[in-house]
Amino acid sequence: MDRDFSIREIGPDEFERAWPIFREVLARGESYNYAADLNLDGARAMWTSPPYRMFLAEADGGEALGCYKLGPNQRGRGDHVANASYMVAEAAWGQGVGTALCEHSLTQARKAGFLAMQFNYVVSTNAAAVHLWSKHGFAIVGRVPEAFRHPTLGLVDIYVMHRML
Amino acid sequence: MDRDFSIREIGPDEFERAWPIFREVLARGESYNYAADLNLDGARAMWTSPPYRMFLAEADGGEALGCYKLGPNQRGRGDHVANASYMVAEAAWGQGVGTALCEHSLTQARKAGFLAMQFNYVVSTNAAAVHLWSKHGFAIVGRVPEAFRHPTLGLVDIYVMHRML
Repeated sequence: MDRDFSIREIGPDEFERAWPIFREVLARGESYNYAADLNLDGARAMWTSPPYRMFLAEADGGEALGCYKLGPNQRGRGDHVANASYMVAEAAWGQGVGTALCEHSLTQARKAGFLAMQFNYVVSTNAAAVHLWSKHGFAIVGRVPEAFRHPTLGLVDIYVMHRML
Repeated sequence: MDRDFSIREIGPDEFERAWPIFREVLARGESYNYAADLNLDGARAMWTSPPYRMFLAEADGGEALGCYKLGPNQRGRGDHVANASYMVAEAAWGQGVGTALCEHSLTQARKAGFLAMQFNYVVSTNAAAVHLWSKHGFAIVGRVPEAFRHPTLGLVDIYVMHRML
């Protein structure tokens, strides 16, 4: 890791620590399909309500650097495949946080018994994310044309990415 | 249409009319990722809570022949793409109900302003569905390996299917 930080699971009571990162992501609008007016309670419910689990990356001083959520990609007969979503605070970009979150999530997903991990909605113009997932063994298994309204690029494709665990 | 029936939108108060069809689908377990113990209230919430809308195909005598739900495939910056799910009662198979539901849903999706329709989870071994969607202009834009636990075939692939509207 390029910076001293640790990753731990958090519950709904600590969700607010990650909220500033959400606000950055919502303001950019370039990588998530969340509504621009998603509020703290809505975000907390999405990220911490079972079966979803949330993990936070913190600097030694306590600063929130990034977070991810982990859960089944589908219920029922599809719940052996995990899904995860990741965010990194802008102030922590380029410091290995995304890589550490991705590796941590793969380990946690294996521990939880998932057989694979799938991302349903990787914005194709989000080169940093596509590169990061590819480096960690994810393949593009689907491409949906014009499924994301990018704030500056207009309608862009999204990728479905997947790897076995 | 091969049989006289009509399709209309219904609300949560009429959901129970479709429940026998759900029970057949859950018992077969071959096409949906729903938990086998999904109950009436859970199914009603999934199919009739906004932004989802539910439509029912009924024979002239009132018998429920099939149903579909329509809504955005994603929230926020992905909500210009529709998603729909369909069920046909076993007693009504081969009578054009699936075709009619599909055509009805495409019309409703266009009316609602959607620009495209996407299915995230078409079980690859569900040949009747894959054939029906293909005939109605849907292309396979993704294939996720082993994402569905088929009750008799084991782990089988799922397709992501898509068409512009």
